Amino acid sequence: MSYLQQLTRPTLILNETIADRNLNAMAQKIANAGLEFRPHFKTHQSLKVAHWYKLLDVTKITVSSVRMASYFVSDWNDITIAFPFNRHEVDVINAIPERVQLQLVVLEESTVKALSETLTRPVNILIKVDSGYGRTGIPAKNIAALTKLKSTIEALPKLTFVGFLAHAGHSYNSTNNKEILDIHQQSEAKVAALRAHFGEGYTYSSGDTPTCSVATEFNGPTELRPGNHIFYDCMMHNISACTYNDVAVCMAVPVVAKHAEEQKIIVHGGGVHFSKDSLSTPDGSTYFGKVVPLTSEGWGAVNDDWHVAALSQEHGTLKALNPAAFDAVQVGDWLGILPVHSCLTANLMKGFLGVSGTVYDHCEGQ
Amino acid sequence: MSYLQQLTRPTLILNETIADRNLNAMAQKIANAGLEFRPHFKTHQSLKVAHWYKLLDVTKITVSSVRMASYFVSDWNDITIAFPFNRHEVDVINAIPERVQLQLVVLEESTVKALSETLTRPVNILIKVDSGYGRTGIPAKNIAALTKLKSTIEALPKLTFVGFLAHAGHSYNSTNNKEILDIHQQSEAKVAALRAHFGEGYTYSSGDTPTCSVATEFNGPTELRPGNHIFYDCMMHNISACTYNDVAVCMAVPVVAKHAEEQKIIVHGGGVHFSKDSLSTPDGSTYFGKVVPLTSEGWGAVNDDWHVAALSQEHGTLKALNPAAFDAVQVGDWLGILPVHSCLTANLMKGFLGVSGTVYDHCEGQ
Repeated sequence: MSYLQQLTRPTLILNETIADRNLNAMAQKIANAGLEFRPHFKTHQSLKVAHWYKLLDVTKITVSSVRMASYFVSDWNDITIAFPFNRHEVDVINAIPERVQLQLVVLEESTVKALSETLTRPVNILIKVDSGYGRTGIPAKNIAALTKLKSTIEALPKLTFVGFLAHAGHSYNSTNNKEILDIHQQSEAKVAALRAHFGEGYTYSSGDTPTCSVATEFNGPTELRPGNHIFYDCMMHNISACTYNDVAVCMAVPVVAKHAEEQKIIVHGGGVHFSKDSLSTPDGSTYFGKVVPLTSEGWGAVNDDWHVAALSQEHGTLKALNPAAFDAVQVGDWLGILPVHSCLTANLMKGFLGVSGTVYDHCEGQ
Repeated sequence: MSYLQQLTRPTLILNETIADRNLNAMAQKIANAGLEFRPHFKTHQSLKVAHWYKLLDVTKITVSSVRMASYFVSDWNDITIAFPFNRHEVDVINAIPERVQLQLVVLEESTVKALSETLTRPVNILIKVDSGYGRTGIPAKNIAALTKLKSTIEALPKLTFVGFLAHAGHSYNSTNNKEILDIHQQSEAKVAALRAHFGEGYTYSSGDTPTCSVATEFNGPTELRPGNHIFYDCMMHNISACTYNDVAVCMAVPVVAKHAEEQKIIVHGGGVHFSKDSLSTPDGSTYFGKVVPLTSEGWGAVNDDWHVAALSQEHGTLKALNPAAFDAVQVGDWLGILPVHSCLTANLMKGFLGVSGTVYDHCEGQ
């Protein structure tokens, strides 16, 4: 039975073949570069999907919240929580079995001290470094502040300083490969300078999906943490970090209304399914995904005869750009929509239906 | 013990006093107008919150999906699913106990016929009417199409035609009360014309939160379906449909980083908590919420010394607009942020912590 026969309502479909190809390609690239692969699991948040990484000998993972770490501890023994640690969650950290090696991320003294007073188990500590994104972290050039914080950590029991964590998240704001590579080189140069200063024996962690997808050389970090690469999405296509053929998730939505006068259809698929992330075409029109035809093996090529023009809470509005496209779709049909931002879409849908028919789990809550 | 002592991570706080005041005010206004109150529960999606409406003798409710209807059937016997019915969910409808009176919404023949072939229980049918929003529905002036669809429904067993459902959702795009009232009057005039044509004995359902909050007269509909009114949010404040003092939910977020050079702080609270809905100030700057101080009784007035400047997946970036504000906040502190769109925020957080300390349920999934 095809997964198509299982559809009754908006459902996020996972094409296992594409996802597997994506993660193999990334694992191979990182192995070729001689670096550690510590994939970010915030994109899929699924134990079943995570298992595919195990088959490639991945043993170390990244998550973005303490809750997500708690979810993955059943299967994983080395977890970096790549978010400035919130001291109020120390009880959850203390409850994580000691077999799990945990890396927490800090960027200032008060959290380090609070941790040392409340921890009942050992943790590793990474210092959050700003390698150019400008969101948070100690600027990579501020060696004095980094050295001071490193010394503070090293003086405290239960805390083991293990290295530095950077994130060149401004790569997501690129418009093409050249910009991604420029950001990559600037960010890596900062990480390399840190490494030259502090020396070997530490982790120098970096690696967002855009730079890891586009770059072929990695000089500076010892480990890379891409996450979105397993699914990709319209946003990654928009900055040329992938093609539409690499997008491994697709929302199946039922058509619930047709409006001939406006040449538009309404689907059940809105902000509660996709999130409200959008992209703009070069001529300035906003779109909330790309339409694909669903097939029993997955889905076909992007159909640019349709424009995903608007999302409200439950409704998606799709405009036909020619009459033949409009006429070809009937109320009750199913369409696929490649999401703009697969991480937020997966986080809303809390699970996937595989093209194989397999139902995939997802971490609950936020 | 104050709810403040229960906080460890981003948590959506519900001020029961404000919510109770909001729903009493709306119930009173609708009772004074002599209309039926059928509140939309997509905003809170909570059985415990829903119970407050029972105390006001509300017996009929609105939801926006079949899943949400299934969630509320344990406690409610009269449910309108205010979304163009997706025929693939008929099995779920058939599984809802017959004690529950269900109103489904349709706007074309093929769904009506599919329903009649697959239903095993009786349902009531409302025809979706477009009273000016332009999203979906049969235009209210198209009496011929409405009459034809009504006749089709009336000829089929298990389906009972009961009326018309309109939604003046363009009121959300208003910028002030005058515009809201203009939309209200135009939409109501169309509903009134329908009522004059089709006569009494049917339901004429209307009523979004902006128009229900601002209008004092309701001429046309027999029932009103506001939902957001129980919580309100920055969006409703922005169009003058409420004041900030009426906003009944607030995200408690921990401060995890301070950046003196940029006079900004990072909180744990991002797109996975709030959604990415944003608003613009008159000078064009974008904001993702409004900062309030948390107190043991709830929260204080909006603090315009802070600007919620950006949200990424987990991070919120708040800029201090003066040095005193920046200096007053430390890493580890808790802040409150009034959400831009309380429906999407509640839908992401899947529950509330009451100021009273009560933990509130929320419908799972999408």
